[in-house]
Amino acid sequence: MNGAEALLRSLVASGVDACFANPGTSEMHFVAALDRVPEMRAVPTLFEGVATGAADGFARVAGRPAATLLHLGPGFANGMANLHNARRAQVPLVNVVGDHATFHQRFDARLQSDLWGMAATTSAWQRSSTRAEDVGADGADAVAASYGPPGGIATLIVPADVSWDEGGRPAPPRPRAPLPLVPADTVEHVAKILRSGEPATLLIGGAAMGERGLRAAERVARATGAKLLCETFPTIHARGGGLPGPEKMAYYGEMGTAQLEGSRVLVLAGARSPVAFFAYPGKPGDLVPPGCPVEPLAGPGVDVVAALEQLAEAVGAGEAPGSPGGPGGGGGGGGGRERPDRPSGALTTETMAAAVGHLLPEGAIVVDESITSGLSVPAATAHGPRHDWLALAGGSIGQGLPVATGAAVAAPDRRVLCLEADGSAMYTVQSLWTQAREGLDVTTIVLANRSYAILQFELARVGASGDGARAASMLDLHRPALDFVDIAAGLGVPASRAHSADELADLLERCLATDGPSLIEAVLAP
Amino acid sequence: MNGAEALLRSLVASGVDACFANPGTSEMHFVAALDRVPEMRAVPTLFEGVATGAADGFARVAGRPAATLLHLGPGFANGMANLHNARRAQVPLVNVVGDHATFHQRFDARLQSDLWGMAATTSAWQRSSTRAEDVGADGADAVAASYGPPGGIATLIVPADVSWDEGGRPAPPRPRAPLPLVPADTVEHVAKILRSGEPATLLIGGAAMGERGLRAAERVARATGAKLLCETFPTIHARGGGLPGPEKMAYYGEMGTAQLEGSRVLVLAGARSPVAFFAYPGKPGDLVPPGCPVEPLAGPGVDVVAALEQLAEAVGAGEAPGSPGGPGGGGGGGGGRERPDRPSGALTTETMAAAVGHLLPEGAIVVDESITSGLSVPAATAHGPRHDWLALAGGSIGQGLPVATGAAVAAPDRRVLCLEADGSAMYTVQSLWTQAREGLDVTTIVLANRSYAILQFELARVGASGDGARAASMLDLHRPALDFVDIAAGLGVPASRAHSADELADLLERCLATDGPSLIEAVLAP
Repeated sequence: MNGAEALLRSLVASGVDACFANPGTSEMHFVAALDRVPEMRAVPTLFEGVATGAADGFARVAGRPAATLLHLGPGFANGMANLHNARRAQVPLVNVVGDHATFHQRFDARLQSDLWGMAATTSAWQRSSTRAEDVGADGADAVAASYGPPGGIATLIVPADVSWDEGGRPAPPRPRAPLPLVPADTVEHVAKILRSGEPATLLIGGAAMGERGLRAAERVARATGAKLLCETFPTIHARGGGLPGPEKMAYYGEMGTAQLEGSRVLVLAGARSPVAFFAYPGKPGDLVPPGCPVEPLAGPGVDVVAALEQLAEAVGAGEAPGSPGGPGGGGGGGGGRERPDRPSGALTTETMAAAVGHLLPEGAIVVDESITSGLSVPAATAHGPRHDWLALAGGSIGQGLPVATGAAVAAPDRRVLCLEADGSAMYTVQSLWTQAREGLDVTTIVLANRSYAILQFELARVGASGDGARAASMLDLHRPALDFVDIAAGLGVPASRAHSADELADLLERCLATDGPSLIEAVLAP
Repeated sequence: MNGAEALLRSLVASGVDACFANPGTSEMHFVAALDRVPEMRAVPTLFEGVATGAADGFARVAGRPAATLLHLGPGFANGMANLHNARRAQVPLVNVVGDHATFHQRFDARLQSDLWGMAATTSAWQRSSTRAEDVGADGADAVAASYGPPGGIATLIVPADVSWDEGGRPAPPRPRAPLPLVPADTVEHVAKILRSGEPATLLIGGAAMGERGLRAAERVARATGAKLLCETFPTIHARGGGLPGPEKMAYYGEMGTAQLEGSRVLVLAGARSPVAFFAYPGKPGDLVPPGCPVEPLAGPGVDVVAALEQLAEAVGAGEAPGSPGGPGGGGGGGGGRERPDRPSGALTTETMAAAVGHLLPEGAIVVDESITSGLSVPAATAHGPRHDWLALAGGSIGQGLPVATGAAVAAPDRRVLCLEADGSAMYTVQSLWTQAREGLDVTTIVLANRSYAILQFELARVGASGDGARAASMLDLHRPALDFVDIAAGLGVPASRAHSADELADLLERCLATDGPSLIEAVLAP
C-alpha cells in the first residue's frame, strides 16, 4: 500500500469521509487511491477557496472535520481567505496539501513557494510528512489536532514521494478527550455575581448558540434578570421552532455600545469580549462600557454548554418553558410572533425578508452572507420553523456559496438557503458548479443591489470625503451589471430573476420544492 | 493632506499610475483620495487574484510597476497565487494593503490575521507604515524596492489611521541605479568556452527574450555554433516580425533532457539551470546531462542584454541578418516560414492554432494559459507579425485572464489575445468584468476540452494507477459542462461559440476588428 492510500484509510478511520478537492500533479496518487477507498466522498471544486469554505460549512453542520486536497503553496494560498473564516468559526478542518517530492524541493522549481510559511499564518497545527510509513499516523494526528484542544485548522503537507512510495500503514483514530469542564468555583463565582442584582449582561457565542446552550442561557437570564445577548457572527445558531432567540450584538460599534449601556457586569459564555469590527476615527474599539467588569464563564476549548447548564442550576433557574410559540420563543431582533405573510409589491430588503420568513422550510440551513441587504431576515425568520443559521464568521467575503455547498454535503436531507450579496458572490461563484455536479439541494438568493453597498456606508463612516465621482465608481457594480442568471446557467445551476416580491415568493417556493441547486437573482429596488 | 493622499501622490511621482483595486473599509481614505489625484488610474476588480495578476501583466508590458490595493490579510491571501506567479516572472509590483488602525490591532477583531507573515511568503520587500508623516516616503521606497536590486514584489502595509491622519507628505522618487553590468572577465570566460568548439548550448530567459537580447543571442549562436534554447515560461517574449525564434525548452523533463543531449557545456543568460517542473518516480529532476558544466553568464538583477551584446562582440559575431522573413526569422518549434492558411473543417488544437496564426494582428500581445490545448500555437505564429508572448511564469493557473487585463491597461493601442484553458479560466474568471468595465481590447479564446487534461496525462506519468472511475471523474469538467458564453455574458463580455475551424476563424476575425473585450468558446473536438 502506498502512502496516499494509507493516508486516505487513516482519515476515514478517524471519521473524515468527505474531501473537497482541487488536486494537481503532486496529488495524483491521492486521487488514484480514491478508487480503492470508496468510503471517502471526494467532491471536486473549481477553485481552492470553494474547497476550504465547503470544509468549513461541512464542519459547522456535521460537527466533525472534512478534508481538503490542495495543490502546493499557490493552491493553499487560494484557499487561505476561507481558512481565515474557518479559523474564526473555530471549526475542525484538515488540509491535505501536496508538495514537491522531498528530493525535488532543492531545485526550487517554478511552482515551489513558502508553503510552510503560508500554512503557519492560519493553521493551529501543521506537519510535513517525510515517509510513506508515517503518513497514515500523520493523518490520524491531523484529525486529532483539528479537534484539539485547542483545535482548528490542521494542515498536513504531503510530498509527492511520500504519497507514491510503498510501505504505507493506515493508523487508527487517536483517542479523543472530552471537552474540559469549567471549574465549579468559576461557575459559582459567576452565579454569585448574577444573583447580586447588579445590572448584568450575559453574552453567549460559539457552541452556546446551539439548542442546549440557548435554553440554558435563557434560564439563567430569566432567573437573574440578566440581559441576554449573542455574538454577531455565529458559527451555527439554532433558531426558530420556539427556541429562545436572544438579541444579537450589532455589527456597528456604536449600536453595540448602546446595547451594553447600563450593564454593570458582562459575563462571557463562548463569546469574546465585544470589540468594533473596524476602527473609526474617534470611536472606541472596545465596546464594553467604562467601569463594567468582564467575567468569563467559558472561553474556547471548554464545554460552554455544560457550564451554562451548571450556571442555570447555580442561580436556581427553573426549567425552560420552551414550547413553540410560548414565552421561550424570543425576539431575535424585533418583529411579531408569527411568520410573515406572503409579501407583494416592490422587491425591497423588507419584502425579500418576508418571502424568506414566509417560506423557510422546517430544518433549513440558512447561510448568511447578505451583508447590508439581509438585515431584516433575522426578525422575519425568528418565529418560523426550527432552522440553523451560519454566519460570516471571519468577515472575509466569499464564504457564503462555499459554506452552503459544504453544509449541503453534510446534511443531504435538509434544504440549504444561501442569502448572498452580489459583490460577495463573485469571490467564489465557482461553488455553483460543484453544487450542480453533486446535485446539492441549495437555493441561493443573490441580493442584487449592484454595489459594494457596505463600503458606501463605510466611506462616510470613516470620515472619508468620498463624494467624488471616481471614489464612488470604485464601489458600484452596475457598469456593467452582473447577470447572475447567465453566470449560474454557465455553471450548470438553473436560475431565474425576481423584480417584485410576488415573483420572489413564487420562485422561492418553486425552488425549495425542487431537487438540486437553484439560484434566484433578487433585483432590489434602489 | 492625509496619509492616503500623500501615498497616492508619492506613487504617482515615482511613476506608478495604475492601481488594480479591491478595497474594503480600511482602504476608504485611499479610495476617497483618488478624486484628488486624477493622475492615478484606479481599476476595480471583483477578486484580488485579478488585481495581482493584472499588476503582473501591466508590469510585463509597461516595464514598470503597477500598484494593487488590497484589504487586510484575507484580501492579500486572495491575491497570493498570482503574486507567486509575478514573483517567478521577476516583475516589479507594489502592493498597498490596508490594515486595521494601529490602535485597533490589539483587539484581534474578526478580520485580523497574520498579514505580515503572509506578505513574507511572497514579497521581496515589505514594510508596515506607522505614521501619516512617513507613508509617502514609504511609498517611494516601495517603488524603488520593486525595481531592486533584487526587485520584485514590494508590499506596503498601511494601517487605517496612517491613511486618515493629517500630516502626510508626498515623497519624490528615489534615484534608480542602472542594472549592474556583468564583469568583463565573466564575458571573456564564457566567450573563450564558446570559441573552443565544444558542443555548447546557450539557454536564454528573462530580459534576454526581448528584441535586443534575442538578436544578440542569435549572433552568438551563429558565430560559435552553439545551440540556442530559451526558457519554457517567459515573462515577455518578443516574437514574429523576422525576429530570431529560438527553440523553447520543453515542459516535460525527458524532452528537455533530450534537447540538451550532446551538450558539453550549458551557458545561462537570464535563465536558470533547467529542472523538471514536477518530480516523477525514477526520473531526474536536474535536466542538465551528467558531466555538462553549467556556466552562468548573467543571472537575475544584472544587465543580461548588455552581457549578450558584449558576448557577441567577444566571440567576433557579425551583425544579425534580422530582416523580416530573412534567415533571422527562426523556427520557434517547427512549422513553415509562412503564416498558416485560414483553416477549415474540424476544430482541433491544430486548426485552432492555424486560425490564430492566420489572423494574429501586428503588435498583438498574446497571453498564453492554454496548457495542453495550445501546444501548436507557437509554431503557427512564429512567422507572423511582430508580437509579444506572455507565459504562465509561476505555473499557478488562474493567471491568464488577469495578466491579459493588466496588459491591455498598459497598452491601450494594442490588441490582447488570451489563449485560456477552460479549467484555468475558472480560477479568476471575474477578470472579464473588469475588461468590460474598462472597455479593454482583449479577445479571449477559451479552449474547451472540458477536463483538466494535463492532469489526465500527469496521472499516468506519475505512475498512479488511476484507471478507476472515481479518480477519472475528479479530472473532468463536463458534468455539467461549463458554458463560457453564458458566463462571459453574465460578466458583461460579448461571447460566442465555435464548433468548427471555419467558425473560429470567422469569429476571431470579427472580434479582433471590434473595440472592447470579447470571448470565444472554442469547443475542441475530442
